[in-house]
Amino acid sequence: MGMPMELNTLIVTKTHEKRVQENLFTLQKDGYRLYPIEIPIEIRTTLEGETRGTALIKKIEWENAKTTITYQMISLNSSN
Amino acid sequence: MGMPMELNTLIVTKTHEKRVQENLFTLQKDGYRLYPIEIPIEIRTTLEGETRGTALIKKIEWENAKTTITYQMISLNSSN
Amino acid sequence: MGMPMELNTLIVTKTHEKRVQENLFTLQKDGYRLYPIEIPIEIRTTLEGETRGTALIKKIEWENAKTTITYQMISLNSSN
Amino acid sequence: MGMPMELNTLIVTKTHEKRVQENLFTLQKDGYRLYPIEIPIEIRTTLEGETRGTALIKKIEWENAKTTITYQMISLNSSN
Repeated sequence: MGMPMELNTLIVTKTHEKRVQENLFTLQKDGYRLYPIEIPIEIRTTLEGETRGTALIKKIEWENAKTTITYQMISLNSSN
Repeated sequence: MGMPMELNTLIVTKTHEKRVQENLFTLQKDGYRLYPIEIPIEIRTTLEGETRGTALIKKIEWENAKTTITYQMISLNSSN
Repeated sequence: MGMPMELNTLIVTKTHEKRVQENLFTLQKDGYRLYPIEIPIEIRTTLEGETRGTALIKKIEWENAKTTITYQMISLNSSN
Repeated sequence: MGMPMELNTLIVTKTHEKRVQENLFTLQKDGYRLYPIEIPIEIRTTLEGETRGTALIKKIEWENAKTTITYQMISLNSSN
């Protein structure tokens, strides 16, 4: 009767993010995932890939064994 | 730069819940609160009060330092 | 690179607990498990079994994909 | 009856760490803090300071409203 969850310290998009506004995106991931909210977090396209910049997660939703995060890009990696 | 949160093992409504459907309710609480989702959880009107029954949390949303849960009542305390 | 964990709202001993003192026990479980600490929590021998009483978890240790809790029994189910 | 905790994505030592072995340290922090375990995590002396390198947390203990982590340094910032 435990509830499986996963602690995440990076956002890995696998290019599944959807743009909502200029620099605001949503991303859905499998499972219940705990991310820091309103704290700068690194964002990558793949787990092993380069950093794409830094984001602030503004909203997290858990439902039906899915997690949807809404995040704002706050800085872009200058090498991109 | 830590993210304060609170682990909750009860739903305490303080009568602030809103009915969405027959036995589905939403409740907004201050802060980022972690509840078990899809696991039976006791529900009370006040922290020190009697149990009102058992609910299943179906959805949790965290945004702007508020937590909104959507829960389904699955059993009512027979003494109510 | 996420860290799998499990939120637990019950202690299920499967009779693997070890007595440390009069009413103080330790129990090791697989995986990284999050329990409420210093908050009354129900204790059972099996997940589907009857309640054995209420405990307070005093210490949680996570290491090598194991969780060890130290808990104090604070009330026993009178039917036992 | 909620349990306050804090999600941490950095280790900030404030030079309170204690060396246990060659590159293994312990650090005690106030409150119940959740850190990723066995996942590379940035380490700093102060929250606003420069990175000192990367560590792997090997053990987390919660007791008496304190968190004690044991971590291994896995890389040092070359500018130090």
